[in-house]
Amino acid sequence: MRITVLRLGHRPARDKRLSTHLMLAARAFGASDAFYCGTMDPGLEDSVNRVVRDWGGGFKVVYAASWRRVMSEWGGRIVHLTMYGLPAQEAVPMVRAEDDPLLVVVGGPKVPREVYDMADWNVSVTGQPHSEVSALAVFLHMLLEGSEQASEFTGARLRIVPSARGKDVAVSKD
Amino acid sequence: MRITVLRLGHRPARDKRLSTHLMLAARAFGASDAFYCGTMDPGLEDSVNRVVRDWGGGFKVVYAASWRRVMSEWGGRIVHLTMYGLPAQEAVPMVRAEDDPLLVVVGGPKVPREVYDMADWNVSVTGQPHSEVSALAVFLHMLLEGSEQASEFTGARLRIVPSARGKDVAVSKD
Repeated sequence: MRITVLRLGHRPARDKRLSTHLMLAARAFGASDAFYCGTMDPGLEDSVNRVVRDWGGGFKVVYAASWRRVMSEWGGRIVHLTMYGLPAQEAVPMVRAEDDPLLVVVGGPKVPREVYDMADWNVSVTGQPHSEVSALAVFLHMLLEGSEQASEFTGARLRIVPSARGKDVAVSKD
Repeated sequence: MRITVLRLGHRPARDKRLSTHLMLAARAFGASDAFYCGTMDPGLEDSVNRVVRDWGGGFKVVYAASWRRVMSEWGGRIVHLTMYGLPAQEAVPMVRAEDDPLLVVVGGPKVPREVYDMADWNVSVTGQPHSEVSALAVFLHMLLEGSEQASEFTGARLRIVPSARGKDVAVSKD
C-alpha cells in the first residue's frame, strides 16, 4: 500500500522540530512521501532531505499551498488522525482492506471541520491527548503490521548494525 | 508491569514541546510516571499536569538532577531506547518476560556511553532515525500489546466519545 502523509498548518518557528520528527517517523514507518501545509519552510525540507541522503530510500517532502486541494484531488482513500476519531484497533482492518493509495492527514492546531468530512476515516490512536508524532507512528505500525523493522532503504550511505551495547554504523563506500 | 520513563538532557527553550509530547505519549501508552534530567522546567511540568487534571489518571513528571543516580538506584530492569540497539521485535519478548518495574530511558543529544552500559537492554525501534516520541510510543505499544486503547484513566474530567465524523467530548460534572 502506497502511503502519503499530509501535515496541516506547519509554523516554522514553533513546529520545526516536531514537523521534522513527524516526517522522519512517516519515512521510518513506511510512508513514501509527505506534503505539508501552513508556511513553507526550506529548513524543514533540508532536515528531512539530509536524513534521506544518509539513510536511503526515496522519501520526499513537498510543500502544498492548499490542503483542500491535496485532499479533494487525492485518488485514493483518506485517513485523518484525530483524538476524536474511531479507535485505531477498529479502523485499521477497514483501512487495510483497501488497496488504494492512502493519504494520512495529521493535524496542526485547529483542524477545520471540512477535514473531518473529507476523510474516509477519522481515526484515534488511544483517545487520549499525546502527539501527532506518536499517533502517526503507532497507526502506521499497526497498519503495516510492524513491517518497518525489516524495511530496506535503498541507496543508504549509513546503516545501523544492531548492537546490544554499542553504536555500530556501517558506512557505504560509494 | 509498572513503567517509568526517564528523559535525558531536557533543554527548556529547545525541547519544551518535544518533551511535553514525549511525556504525554508515555502517559497515553501506559507509563505510570516519568523523570526528566537536564534543565528543570516548570513549564513542561505544568503542561503535563494540566493534561492529567483534565484527562485523568495518576501520571507524574518529576525533575531528577542526576540520571546516573536514577539509573543506579533503580530497583528493576532498564531499557534504553536508541537507534543503535537490538530490534524491538527481538527485545520486547525478553523485556515482557520480566515482571520487575521497568525504567525506559529516552535520550537527548549525545547520550553518554555509561547509559548504554547501565541498561539491561539497548533497544531500537526501526533502526532508522525518527523521534524519541515515536520510538517510545511504538515500544510501549508493542510491550503492552496495544492495551493502551482500552486504558481507563480514573478521575478524568474529560473523556472522548469515539466518533466517525465529529468531536464528542464527555465532561464529568463533579
